[in-house]
Amino acid sequence: MTLGFEIIARDGRARAGRLITRRGPVPTPVFMPVATQGAVKAMSPRDVREVGGAMVLANTYHLLLRPGVEVVRELGGLHRFMGWDGPILTDSGGFQVYSLAPLRRIEEEGVIFRSHLDGALVSLTPEEAIAAQQALGSDIMMVLDECPPAGAPRGYLLEALRRDERWARRAIKVWDRASGAGLMGIIQGGVDLELRAMSVELICALGLDGYALGGLSVGEPKQKMWEVIEATVQLLPQDKPVYLMGVGAPEDLVKAVGLGVDMFDCVLPTRMARTGTLLTSTGRINIKNARYARDERPVEMGCGCYTCRNFSRAYLRHLFMSRELLAYTLNTIHNLHYILGLMAGLRRAIEEGNYQAFARDVLESLAQGGAEADQGGWDA
Amino acid sequence: MTLGFEIIARDGRARAGRLITRRGPVPTPVFMPVATQGAVKAMSPRDVREVGGAMVLANTYHLLLRPGVEVVRELGGLHRFMGWDGPILTDSGGFQVYSLAPLRRIEEEGVIFRSHLDGALVSLTPEEAIAAQQALGSDIMMVLDECPPAGAPRGYLLEALRRDERWARRAIKVWDRASGAGLMGIIQGGVDLELRAMSVELICALGLDGYALGGLSVGEPKQKMWEVIEATVQLLPQDKPVYLMGVGAPEDLVKAVGLGVDMFDCVLPTRMARTGTLLTSTGRINIKNARYARDERPVEMGCGCYTCRNFSRAYLRHLFMSRELLAYTLNTIHNLHYILGLMAGLRRAIEEGNYQAFARDVLESLAQGGAEADQGGWDA
Repeated sequence: MTLGFEIIARDGRARAGRLITRRGPVPTPVFMPVATQGAVKAMSPRDVREVGGAMVLANTYHLLLRPGVEVVRELGGLHRFMGWDGPILTDSGGFQVYSLAPLRRIEEEGVIFRSHLDGALVSLTPEEAIAAQQALGSDIMMVLDECPPAGAPRGYLLEALRRDERWARRAIKVWDRASGAGLMGIIQGGVDLELRAMSVELICALGLDGYALGGLSVGEPKQKMWEVIEATVQLLPQDKPVYLMGVGAPEDLVKAVGLGVDMFDCVLPTRMARTGTLLTSTGRINIKNARYARDERPVEMGCGCYTCRNFSRAYLRHLFMSRELLAYTLNTIHNLHYILGLMAGLRRAIEEGNYQAFARDVLESLAQGGAEADQGGWDA
Repeated sequence: MTLGFEIIARDGRARAGRLITRRGPVPTPVFMPVATQGAVKAMSPRDVREVGGAMVLANTYHLLLRPGVEVVRELGGLHRFMGWDGPILTDSGGFQVYSLAPLRRIEEEGVIFRSHLDGALVSLTPEEAIAAQQALGSDIMMVLDECPPAGAPRGYLLEALRRDERWARRAIKVWDRASGAGLMGIIQGGVDLELRAMSVELICALGLDGYALGGLSVGEPKQKMWEVIEATVQLLPQDKPVYLMGVGAPEDLVKAVGLGVDMFDCVLPTRMARTGTLLTSTGRINIKNARYARDERPVEMGCGCYTCRNFSRAYLRHLFMSRELLAYTLNTIHNLHYILGLMAGLRRAIEEGNYQAFARDVLESLAQGGAEADQGGWDA
């Protein structure tokens, strides 16, 4: 067996379940903190555990270029390298090739790009993407695909998703199932529902361990994104995990779970933390705001994270204004604790058949914007 | 009572004892990690505890300018503000006025300077320096003095140390002894042993809780520094703690303890950590060095710190090269653990009457430079 998936409870389209990885079970819906370069930014592995992290995502593209996947393998694999003993999902490297690499050429064989670090020409084929993830010791791997930009013409999207299917077949051929690592496919097709349906048909015929929605949150109108998610999730096999890549705003997590999504990753909570934006149940607060200079309250009353248990908004503002490194750690602890707590709340609500009411309360509280109003209407 | 001091054991001139602060006892010799702006850089208070930190130093100058000592007082004092429940020693603010402020004028009344943050004119008198430290809630305060630059002429040094004595008298007048906070004086006089003796006579006549050697490690020849330390410590009252300000290299700590110094603070271990220099019992290693790219050993074999228990040199190098914030935290954990472990070793050796052998072993191991040789003779 590679990657298993059990559904424990359903509530409407929402599901609570668990992924059975070779490194143990992971309750779903799950949010994966992003460890781009083999570290969740500003966090130690024990910090990630403490805030409720069960599984992290690492970026194959970054680790391929630095320190190199062979180095990581020699050192015992990514888990040992980064000191994380929970499951790790790795992306294929494709998304960063399209978003970060200054030059790239997509051919039938694969993609050729220049490293954003030193300009070196690097090739990435579907087979190499799997080999890299296997060298890292990934527990859940992703197939290499193309992520076309928002607004790409239909003909381009069609050609790309057909190539994606051929690439997925090649990826499967080099997948070492005996290792126990899972492999997930990626559905593309832009915001064209017909193309999405075609991609589902092509990719799901391959019998992978789960399916991700790719090519969303890349600049398309938000309404379009939700249409695609809603329509596509219903076409996917009901017994496999569904992964929405790159989405992580609190309100989006709540909605997507309601549409049947099981897995998420996003840099939003960690990146916002580093720019001074803190997530709360009543919206975001900008800790740089002068109104927090003498505010002795924690970021969120009743929050059980290390940051809220020990430090005031005034101290967090002081650290941020003073550019103290501790600011980034404390802010990240809070934001991840908030997001992971939200996911735990969603799981519980689904198990209790209470998703609708829970989601409505969360969304109302976020929209009512107590936190934003509290700091003068500032919006991140 | 304000600040107490008990000597538990002597070995030659070295002493092991404890400071009795209003926030509990602190074993000496003690090294105080520096929390310049109300945070030990890249460390949370629990990290500082875990590496063995018992007491920290905070800089009055920095906190005076940002967030302001009145803000800290309103928020319940520095301990609560920064989440540190151990003792805190604060400096007077003077040293940073001389080293950081772009413009300053020293008069009988006090010193006037421009903030390095916004150019605002700020005055600091001996009374204001105590008031600021009391507002912060400092457990051990320092009197305001002048720290003349290395090479200042004798006449200048003499005038300054005489003014220091008048300033110390004024500081004592506003010292709230009932609060239980201690107050220490500072010995100046450059590298002139006669002037140092005069400063000892003037300052020690005031009956303060302890005495610091100031104006050292400011650019004078190292040999001179040791002459001054050796001669001056012997003139100080034997029943009061002796504090050598701003010295923290491992070999210097070992030597100074042997000369009778009880207290230290220095940014060296934390600052070096942030530039990639790691302290070990066989010397420093530069984690940026390419030779560590595949080195799966911990920074120091047998080290019990979180960093060494969980991560390889290869990973630390990767984090540093990738500018991951976690690099600064993990490096700082190791360096402070090393320094604080060295201090614990010195205390034990003194209690066991074994200081000489312990010191010789430590200095030989450091000088033999296994770690430096190990990485090609690089020297930080």
